[in-house]
Amino acid sequence: MQTIGFVGLGAMGAPMAWNLDDAGYELLVYNRSDGPTEPFADAGIEVAESPRELGQQADVVITMVTDDEALAAVLDGPDGLLTGINGSNTVIQMSTVTPDATLAAAETVRAQNSRFVDAPVSGTVGPAEEGTLTVLAGGEDDVLDDVEAILEAMGEPVVRCGGVGDGARMKLFVNLLLGDMMSAYAEALTFGAAQDLNLDAMQQVVEAGAVDSPLFRIKGELIAARDFEPRFPVDLQFKDLRYANEVANDVGLTLPQTAAARESFSAASAMGHGNEDMTAVLKYLESVAGVTVGE
Amino acid sequence: MQTIGFVGLGAMGAPMAWNLDDAGYELLVYNRSDGPTEPFADAGIEVAESPRELGQQADVVITMVTDDEALAAVLDGPDGLLTGINGSNTVIQMSTVTPDATLAAAETVRAQNSRFVDAPVSGTVGPAEEGTLTVLAGGEDDVLDDVEAILEAMGEPVVRCGGVGDGARMKLFVNLLLGDMMSAYAEALTFGAAQDLNLDAMQQVVEAGAVDSPLFRIKGELIAARDFEPRFPVDLQFKDLRYANEVANDVGLTLPQTAAARESFSAASAMGHGNEDMTAVLKYLESVAGVTVGE
Amino acid sequence: MQTIGFVGLGAMGAPMAWNLDDAGYELLVYNRSDGPTEPFADAGIEVAESPRELGQQADVVITMVTDDEALAAVLDGPDGLLTGINGSNTVIQMSTVTPDATLAAAETVRAQNSRFVDAPVSGTVGPAEEGTLTVLAGGEDDVLDDVEAILEAMGEPVVRCGGVGDGARMKLFVNLLLGDMMSAYAEALTFGAAQDLNLDAMQQVVEAGAVDSPLFRIKGELIAARDFEPRFPVDLQFKDLRYANEVANDVGLTLPQTAAARESFSAASAMGHGNEDMTAVLKYLESVAGVTVGE
Amino acid sequence: MQTIGFVGLGAMGAPMAWNLDDAGYELLVYNRSDGPTEPFADAGIEVAESPRELGQQADVVITMVTDDEALAAVLDGPDGLLTGINGSNTVIQMSTVTPDATLAAAETVRAQNSRFVDAPVSGTVGPAEEGTLTVLAGGEDDVLDDVEAILEAMGEPVVRCGGVGDGARMKLFVNLLLGDMMSAYAEALTFGAAQDLNLDAMQQVVEAGAVDSPLFRIKGELIAARDFEPRFPVDLQFKDLRYANEVANDVGLTLPQTAAARESFSAASAMGHGNEDMTAVLKYLESVAGVTVGE
Repeated sequence: MQTIGFVGLGAMGAPMAWNLDDAGYELLVYNRSDGPTEPFADAGIEVAESPRELGQQADVVITMVTDDEALAAVLDGPDGLLTGINGSNTVIQMSTVTPDATLAAAETVRAQNSRFVDAPVSGTVGPAEEGTLTVLAGGEDDVLDDVEAILEAMGEPVVRCGGVGDGARMKLFVNLLLGDMMSAYAEALTFGAAQDLNLDAMQQVVEAGAVDSPLFRIKGELIAARDFEPRFPVDLQFKDLRYANEVANDVGLTLPQTAAARESFSAASAMGHGNEDMTAVLKYLESVAGVTVGE
Repeated sequence: MQTIGFVGLGAMGAPMAWNLDDAGYELLVYNRSDGPTEPFADAGIEVAESPRELGQQADVVITMVTDDEALAAVLDGPDGLLTGINGSNTVIQMSTVTPDATLAAAETVRAQNSRFVDAPVSGTVGPAEEGTLTVLAGGEDDVLDDVEAILEAMGEPVVRCGGVGDGARMKLFVNLLLGDMMSAYAEALTFGAAQDLNLDAMQQVVEAGAVDSPLFRIKGELIAARDFEPRFPVDLQFKDLRYANEVANDVGLTLPQTAAARESFSAASAMGHGNEDMTAVLKYLESVAGVTVGE
Repeated sequence: MQTIGFVGLGAMGAPMAWNLDDAGYELLVYNRSDGPTEPFADAGIEVAESPRELGQQADVVITMVTDDEALAAVLDGPDGLLTGINGSNTVIQMSTVTPDATLAAAETVRAQNSRFVDAPVSGTVGPAEEGTLTVLAGGEDDVLDDVEAILEAMGEPVVRCGGVGDGARMKLFVNLLLGDMMSAYAEALTFGAAQDLNLDAMQQVVEAGAVDSPLFRIKGELIAARDFEPRFPVDLQFKDLRYANEVANDVGLTLPQTAAARESFSAASAMGHGNEDMTAVLKYLESVAGVTVGE
Repeated sequence: MQTIGFVGLGAMGAPMAWNLDDAGYELLVYNRSDGPTEPFADAGIEVAESPRELGQQADVVITMVTDDEALAAVLDGPDGLLTGINGSNTVIQMSTVTPDATLAAAETVRAQNSRFVDAPVSGTVGPAEEGTLTVLAGGEDDVLDDVEAILEAMGEPVVRCGGVGDGARMKLFVNLLLGDMMSAYAEALTFGAAQDLNLDAMQQVVEAGAVDSPLFRIKGELIAARDFEPRFPVDLQFKDLRYANEVANDVGLTLPQTAAARESFSAASAMGHGNEDMTAVLKYLESVAGVTVGE
């Protein structure tokens, strides 16, 4: 069985790596800081000194880091992954990064005669633990065939989105929809609350109709509890909407509703809610209206 | 068992009336034009000559007509329902009308010493036939208790939304969310299509994630088939968003995203798609972007 | 010379009436409440008991009241203007009312064999006093010819906008632009203030460029002084933007920017600034951004 | 008198350089391509071989190039300006570039012990020829004092905006307002046209009121003539609105109206009008409404 190197043991990466371990893969891990590697070391899993070493020892290397900058830091430099890979490797890029960063990474990896898969995931920590992340896979079909079992150890379904870059584009597509829906739900709840509609009744009506959605059930429960602990914070959703608007402006579209949602997230962030859960976009609307949903 | 008078045998009203018949209620129907009453007459159900006659003979009268004006036409005038009711009646208003029209109707009905229930429904023809409409019930608890079995013959769940007017308000709440989601989905699909993402892949990703919704499944299939036959046409959804924005402006809110969605529906209507299904809001976005989703 | 009856001696109406007096017209005035008529009575100008009496005695009747409802109250009822006019009158409607109210008033006036001119004004109290209001005149050319001297006694220029209704439409056109510009200026100032640009420098730059406007000079000075005393309050501008959006939705347009401006005025109103000057739309933006322009 | 090196002899730069020549300054010019330098050579003005040479020979160097990239190309590289300056120079950066690019340029110039002035201009070719550009000057007061006469040879007024970076910020401030006003004017005209208001009457009303502006007079005349030849094209205005929104999102603001204007410019660009004058944002609105302003 193939050896898998895994870079980035954060809240998402760690459970993904454990699922690969559970699936029987030979694992080798790396993390910029030491803390997150300890449970792996304790379990007898080898910890690499650098991305370079990981590239040298593993057949397949998975990157699961924070953003474009973190990905560049993994790839580049004297201890970077690019100095370690050598033609027999496949790099599976699973971080949420931009299409541009994805294409750039693919080019440098391929320049080392290695293969590249673009495979960001949709889902949060729960699905990461359960192995039910949606994997948004972009790449050549034969390469995707070769890594399919690996991807399936971490997620289900594995959706083939097209070539390299299309995984990143698909991630932006789904997060655009996520941001718009979250903001729409916040507007609807504020609309109801300002007319003294009961939150529980509003949620029953949503759940009984065509507009029902796991998002509204999960976030609705948290709103009812006024729990704004960050699962996916305002500022990350805000960043995705900004990026989606930029891409849309680049490719020749008008997205008036998404632009409005972006400005609402900007307002929520400006009002100090950037590190709260994305549901806190509601707090901006409540503040203007002088109402509190659920009270 | 109580006699039920049913006014308005349109696409929604007719199956609702049949469900009452199936549930064993003594039925009496009225429709402004004759055609829709024929199947009822053929089945031996009595057809009234006027709303007035219906009010005189039925214990409970259900109104299920097009809009505020049609409701006023049923209530008022020498042959109107108000001249027929007399203190032993309960009027259940199930049309989608404004909160203002609802409160006005309640006032006139109560002035005739009759009881009033505000009970619009959420759902389309399919749920109407299956008796699974969401009933948004507003009224006094004891009155709602008395008519609960009748409402349950037509819908499930019956959600108690508060007093008279709150049913109409809840209907607007859910249709605001519906319009925003439809327009958001259209923006997301256009965004993807402009980047050559495959429609089927986009739909798989939506269905696998937190943003999944019956709305996106139903409408997504129709969009894939480029089927814009009206289920709920652009112009009706547009009307609801306009009305929701007006109410929001009245009660002191800002709804930037809903305002943007309203303008997109306005654009779709202006471009000639008002009588197509609400999914045709997509055609406005496609026209600007010069792309066709699903091609 | 013709006798002119003037209904509505408010902040705008009174100086307009005085200008007619100065121009040598025989004047007869009416106001719903007594206070505003006193200065006219003191100056020997006849005060009518009712709009009816005004219609009976004056050749030309000018209406300058608050809104659609106030205009209907002047026209209708046993003491209303319609019972007083009789075929030799011309009614000049100068209040800011909707095109629909204008058309309805014209119809009832014409049914009394009298002539109707639609002539709302653009401008505030200063221009009303100086006789430099812009008069937005709609009507048949020969009727407009007959009243031109009267209109010129109150304003300059008198712009011929088309037929009856087009004056009201033109008023909405210019107030749409006014609302959008006010909100745009507020956004620009907040944008600058959040980056520590100096208000005085911003105003110098605006005044030196193509974007210069009397509006920005007048309102800019008030903003610099943090003077939000109402000249044209938020709620009136808000009402006009709402109405403009409704008309736009009726005739088949998309007005995304105006819709956004409307929601900003809604926010300012919701936050308690409805009775402050329209410049207070700035306070909503400042509140979100946590900055104060001019400090 | 000081020797001035001028980099960038485009449509704006050439007349600015000529104005310096007229004011009696010893001039030395450079342009990436040769054509634009010819009239200067013909007039006996020295043409440098590289920005480096310019830096070596001139006391003051003015940069007036297209964008961030063009500015970097002037500064960097073996023949770049940075290799030529040496402690006795002052660089006046007058291109429209981002605040970030301005700050980066200032840092590299200062690292060569030279002084830096941030002085973009507001205005088009006409004011550039007449020497009436608005100069948005940012820098230390003593440095600005030293170059004031030079700036005044090209523009009037010279507005002191603050430190280095504030000139670029002010430029973005005024172009944000410009874009919002252009789009607002386009919405207003479409609104009027859809109701058959006459363009000439609309323009008279605008010119007579508080909303009057040189922008509306200049652009209104071009719209009446259906002349969309680019003075300031859609795509440049669009770029500025995008950048303004990005900055606003960075510093913690909500700019809903500017976001809507940006999406309208995006739509106009997507529909193929990117290289037409900014007035062509109107064509997007006309296309949706099915009307043509001025017809």
